[in-house]
Amino acid sequence: MGELSLIAALEQALSMRGGRVLRGPGDDAAVVRADGAVAVTSVDAVVEGVHFKLDTHSPADVGHKALAAALSDLGAMGARPGEAYVVLGLPSEFGEERALGLVHAMERLAERTGTVIAGGDVVGAPQLVVSVTVTGWGDSEDALAYRDGARPGDLVGVTGELGGSGAGMLLLEQGERDGPLVQRHLRPTPRLKAGAALAAAGVSAMIDVSDGIATDARHIAERSGVELLVELERAPLAPGLGEAAERLGRDPLELAAAAGEDYELLFTGPPDAREAVERAPAPLSVSWIGEVREGSGLTLLGAGGRELAVRGYEHS
Amino acid sequence: MGELSLIAALEQALSMRGGRVLRGPGDDAAVVRADGAVAVTSVDAVVEGVHFKLDTHSPADVGHKALAAALSDLGAMGARPGEAYVVLGLPSEFGEERALGLVHAMERLAERTGTVIAGGDVVGAPQLVVSVTVTGWGDSEDALAYRDGARPGDLVGVTGELGGSGAGMLLLEQGERDGPLVQRHLRPTPRLKAGAALAAAGVSAMIDVSDGIATDARHIAERSGVELLVELERAPLAPGLGEAAERLGRDPLELAAAAGEDYELLFTGPPDAREAVERAPAPLSVSWIGEVREGSGLTLLGAGGRELAVRGYEHS
Repeated sequence: MGELSLIAALEQALSMRGGRVLRGPGDDAAVVRADGAVAVTSVDAVVEGVHFKLDTHSPADVGHKALAAALSDLGAMGARPGEAYVVLGLPSEFGEERALGLVHAMERLAERTGTVIAGGDVVGAPQLVVSVTVTGWGDSEDALAYRDGARPGDLVGVTGELGGSGAGMLLLEQGERDGPLVQRHLRPTPRLKAGAALAAAGVSAMIDVSDGIATDARHIAERSGVELLVELERAPLAPGLGEAAERLGRDPLELAAAAGEDYELLFTGPPDAREAVERAPAPLSVSWIGEVREGSGLTLLGAGGRELAVRGYEHS
Repeated sequence: MGELSLIAALEQALSMRGGRVLRGPGDDAAVVRADGAVAVTSVDAVVEGVHFKLDTHSPADVGHKALAAALSDLGAMGARPGEAYVVLGLPSEFGEERALGLVHAMERLAERTGTVIAGGDVVGAPQLVVSVTVTGWGDSEDALAYRDGARPGDLVGVTGELGGSGAGMLLLEQGERDGPLVQRHLRPTPRLKAGAALAAAGVSAMIDVSDGIATDARHIAERSGVELLVELERAPLAPGLGEAAERLGRDPLELAAAAGEDYELLFTGPPDAREAVERAPAPLSVSWIGEVREGSGLTLLGAGGRELAVRGYEHS
């Protein structure tokens, strides 16, 4: 199948729902109604052999996760999802069926989140490469949440449950192919509605947990010029994490802190926003796991209040 | 050099000039003032060994050309250049110096064209991969030029000169490393001002000549549901093309038609827009090289009015 007919097949897999995309694939560029006052754009790329292996990740897993990771950045800003632009670098032996499987999984996640895949490029590549640019929209610069707004006295909160993706990754490497932890790793859900609700509720800083709290909390601390104190025992762990960690011979709290790719939202907010924040991200729960202090860096407390010296793996 | 410090070095190479970028690199996503009514976005990716070789293209050439190709799509829509988001897939042996050389060349072209490199991602990759997303801005959907607007009776025009890049590519493959044709291939100039001026002057359809007129004129014909008749003898050839073609044993008209990557603008326009169009893309010249008729596809006439059966190479 030639590159042009593959592009045509991929275009057919996409839907320009919503009326915001005035011109989609097929011209030199996509044209989108800029109905928000500010455009919020993030780029993420994954490469076979570096970020995933095709013997543990199906093409659909790869497509889903690449788009989910990019959309997660929009959630962490509190932006409304908008458009995605996808570059596929396909090895010559990859084949049409797998390329379509990858794109269909992206399209399903796009539909579920209100995103439109409005353009892209297909090129040859020695390994599978998926690069996703997502643009979301916000009402104003001030309506969004950044990494640099944490202030001493703020509380530290997190959505959902931690550690599931990290355990799932290790189980996958040991040959498991199913179960909720493996699924959590392969098919993360970007927290778009929660992010928008938290930004509207007045959080002072926000980031998505892509590299593990040990790294991501440090990003907020560094960008905000403050110290974050996080007590991991206050964070809810993914169901089944304790049992899986035992089988894996790992400390569940360390998995929750360092393994990353949970794509939950870590945020700070002033105490008087606490009630609004707790109501915001339904049906997700919010847990309060620490506080912001004068100082710098991250202090991470594990079991029994002992300091943990883990750093998150540097996913990129 | 670790990935995080390389990212920091790359960020330092960029300038958030212009005040349109409210938040650049360093947060989850970039935030841009959406001061136009419509956002125009295009994605282009190039892969080492597929689109270029590092023994003929310096990292700076690769960076320049990847951004130029993406910006050329904005020119072909008549959009004002806005922001670029760059994904670099770097082999482990690529090194900081070459990565910075690549980014510096991109930043120089960005500055020259009024573009801001507002975000990106750096990942490991087995071969050098550069993926560029560019967003430009337009006043309205109607103010832009598309591929589907050509109507019977329109004239066909092209900016600048053709064939230089194709000859330069062949000369490069034969070991030449310098000269205007080689430079034309390595460092193309996106026709942003010309594109905006042509759109404002009332062209009915426009595309950039990335794959060669033999392919790109066919795109306009197919999307518009018309036939394009192009007489190549009326198109100006790049200076030195005749002599280079003789050395290469090639037909200069065929190089001009099929080799592509000249990144000139091919357009159609009604006869009553002719005068406005001719004044528009200064200091570039416009040449009238054909007409639009009822029918379908492209009729391409070469020397002595004989039909040429070439197709452009499919660059992607």
